[in-house]
Amino acid sequence: MGGLERRIYLDYSATTPVDPRVVEAMLPYWSTVFGNTESSHAFGQAAANALEQARQTVADVLGCHPAEIAFTGSGSEADNLALRGVAWAARQSERGNHIVTTPIEHHAVGHTVDQLRDLFGFEVTRVPVDGYGRVDPDDVAAAIRPATVLVSVMLANNEVGTVQPLAEIGRICHERGVVFHTDAIQAAGRLPLKVDELNVDLLALAAHKFYGPKGVGLLYVRRGISLVPTLTGGGHERGRRPGTVNVAGAVGLATALRLVEEERLAEVARLHDLRDRLVEGVLASIPASRLTGHPTERLAHHASFVFQGVEGESVVLNLDLAGIAAGSGAACAEGEVEPSFVLKAMGIPAEWGVGSLRLSLGHANDEADVARVLEVLPEIVKRLRAGE
Amino acid sequence: MGGLERRIYLDYSATTPVDPRVVEAMLPYWSTVFGNTESSHAFGQAAANALEQARQTVADVLGCHPAEIAFTGSGSEADNLALRGVAWAARQSERGNHIVTTPIEHHAVGHTVDQLRDLFGFEVTRVPVDGYGRVDPDDVAAAIRPATVLVSVMLANNEVGTVQPLAEIGRICHERGVVFHTDAIQAAGRLPLKVDELNVDLLALAAHKFYGPKGVGLLYVRRGISLVPTLTGGGHERGRRPGTVNVAGAVGLATALRLVEEERLAEVARLHDLRDRLVEGVLASIPASRLTGHPTERLAHHASFVFQGVEGESVVLNLDLAGIAAGSGAACAEGEVEPSFVLKAMGIPAEWGVGSLRLSLGHANDEADVARVLEVLPEIVKRLRAGE
Repeated sequence: MGGLERRIYLDYSATTPVDPRVVEAMLPYWSTVFGNTESSHAFGQAAANALEQARQTVADVLGCHPAEIAFTGSGSEADNLALRGVAWAARQSERGNHIVTTPIEHHAVGHTVDQLRDLFGFEVTRVPVDGYGRVDPDDVAAAIRPATVLVSVMLANNEVGTVQPLAEIGRICHERGVVFHTDAIQAAGRLPLKVDELNVDLLALAAHKFYGPKGVGLLYVRRGISLVPTLTGGGHERGRRPGTVNVAGAVGLATALRLVEEERLAEVARLHDLRDRLVEGVLASIPASRLTGHPTERLAHHASFVFQGVEGESVVLNLDLAGIAAGSGAACAEGEVEPSFVLKAMGIPAEWGVGSLRLSLGHANDEADVARVLEVLPEIVKRLRAGE
Repeated sequence: MGGLERRIYLDYSATTPVDPRVVEAMLPYWSTVFGNTESSHAFGQAAANALEQARQTVADVLGCHPAEIAFTGSGSEADNLALRGVAWAARQSERGNHIVTTPIEHHAVGHTVDQLRDLFGFEVTRVPVDGYGRVDPDDVAAAIRPATVLVSVMLANNEVGTVQPLAEIGRICHERGVVFHTDAIQAAGRLPLKVDELNVDLLALAAHKFYGPKGVGLLYVRRGISLVPTLTGGGHERGRRPGTVNVAGAVGLATALRLVEEERLAEVARLHDLRDRLVEGVLASIPASRLTGHPTERLAHHASFVFQGVEGESVVLNLDLAGIAAGSGAACAEGEVEPSFVLKAMGIPAEWGVGSLRLSLGHANDEADVARVLEVLPEIVKRLRAGE
C-alpha cells in the first residue's frame, strides 16, 4: 500500500476514493445498527429506517419517489436488472422482442443485450454514433419498430466522455410508447440527474464513481414499469432485488450522492477549468495528437486523447512509471487485449491507436497535477514514437 | 440508533454485527488502496493484490484453489449464479433440463428454481424432508434422471437449523455425473467447510452471516464446472461476475471467514452449551412446546420452537418489547404473511402455529442472556395463550 499517497491519481472515471465523510456516515452500520432490514425487532427496524432515509436522500437528488429506487450490488447489476427485467417482462406479456441501443455502451449494457440476443432470441438494433461518439435522436426514431420494447442509451461515455442528447431521445421513446433506460454511471456528480428532465424510465448508478463505496449501485424504476427480477430470492427492494440489503452501502451511496450534488456546480467548474488547461496543453505540446469524444458535449472532468502511432495503454504504463495513474479507455476492458470498440464505432483510424489515453480529474487534483502531466507526457509520447 | 447496545440480540442467523477486527481490516480499502482492480496502474494493482490475497484466504478455509472462488454482491446472488449458471450452460450444451432440490431451501434457491421452471421450461423435483427437516440421500438418488443437470441441497436450514447429509448426497450426485450445489450460508463459522469433504461442486456464502459486512458473498465453483454468467458485463472474476469488485468487501469477507474458522471449535462449543441450556429451559418451563428441526443434527448456536396455539411472530414481537431480538423463521420471509414453508414441509400441524420462534446465539451472548429469556419467555407464551 506504500506510496500511493505520493502518486497523482487521474483515473476518477475508473473509480474514486471514498469521501471521508461517507466512511464516517457508514461506520455505525457495521457494528451498531447492524440489523437485517427484514427483521421485525428493534435492530431490524433501526436498519430499515436508515435504509429508507437513504432511499429518500437518493430520491431527492433524482427528483423521484423513494419507492422508485432499488439498491443493487453494483452499477452493472442495475443495468442488468433494467435490461433483462424489461425484456423478460415484455416477453411474458408478448409485447415485443426488439431492443435499440448504441455500439458504445459499457459492457454491462452491451454484453447483456448480446446475451438477450444470443441466448434468448431477442432482436437488437445498434444505432450508429458520429465521429464524436454522439447518437442522432433521429436514428433512434428510425430504429424503433412496433416490436421495440426498450431503448438503452448511456448518459455519458466512460471512454471518451461524450454526453448524449437523452431528453430528446427520451421524448421520442415516450411518443412511441417505448421504455427508455440510461446507464448514468459516469454522470453522477458531474451532470444533473433529474429523471424527469432526462426523460428516462430507468437509470443506473454506481456509488464508487462518485466518492461512495464499491459494491453498491441503484436502479431508478419509473412507477408503472414492470420488471422481471434478474436475481430471485427474498422480497427485498419491493421484489426487485433479493438479498439482505447492504445498509452501510446504501447509506454510503446516498451520502456520497447528496455531497456530490451539493458541491457539483463548484467542483464541475473547477475541474472544467483544469481539464481545459490539460487539453490545450496536450494538444499544443504533442504533435499529431487528438482529443477523442465531443469537444464541448462532454463530461467536465474528462479528457481523452489518441496519439498517432502510439497505443493508449503504452502511455498509461509509462505515466504509471512516472507516478501518474491514468486510464486507457474503459477500465473494465483493460484486462482484455481487444481494441476499443468505442474508438472503432467512432471511426478513429487504426493508425491512431486502438485505445485512448484517458485522464479523468477529481477531488484531489490541482494545477500542479496538470503541470506535471504536461511536463512528462510529451516526452513519453516522443519516446514511444521513437520506439524506445 | 439509541439503546440497541442495551438490548439482547438473539438473531445471529438473520445477520451479525461486523467484527471490529474486520472493520479495521476493511478501512484502508475505502480511501487509500481504493483503485479499480482492472486498472493497470499502481492504484489498480494494489487493489488487485489485496483482492487476490483475500481470495487465497478464502481458498485456504474451503480447501480449494483461489481461481475457484468468485466474489459476488450477496449470498443470494451466489445461489442465483450457481443455479442459473449451471442450468443455462446445460441448456446450451443440450445436456438436460431437470433440477433436483428440496422444499426447505432459502428463497434464493427456491424462487430461482421456480423461475427456471416457470419462465424457462426447466423441470424440477423437490425431494421430501422428514419431520426433523432432513433429506434422505436415497430420495435424491431416486429423483435423479438421465436429464438431471443439477442437485441443490442446503448445508443447514436457516429456520430450523437442521444439517443435511451433504457428503452422502454429493457422493450419489458424482456417481451419477450430476453437479451438486449447496447453499452453505447458515453454516460458515459453525460447521467445517472443506469442499472436498462436503463433496460439493458449488457452494454459496454470505459474509454478513459470519461477522463480515453485508453486500458481499461468494460462490465456490469447482474447476471444470461451466457456468453461463447470471449477470453480464466486464470480464471480472474470470468472467463469472461483472462489476467493479468490492475490494473492501472481499477483504472483509476473507478476514471474517478466517477469524470464524480460527475460533470455530471454541466458539461452537461455548454456544452449543448455552443453546442446550436454553432448549432444556424452554421445554421444561413451557407446556406444549416443541423444538423444531433435528435435536442433534443441527447448528450448534440455533434453537427453534413452536408453542401449541401460539404464533412465532407474536412471540417475537413480545420478546422485542422485553428487549430481546429473536427471529420467526426465515428473516427474509418476515415481511410476508404466508405460513412457513419449512414447517409445512416438515409436517408440523397448523395448530402448532405457522411460524417458529428462532433464537440464534452468537459472540455477544452469555449465560445472563439465556437466563433472561427463560425469565420472560414462559410468561409471554402464557399471556398469548390466554389471549392477552
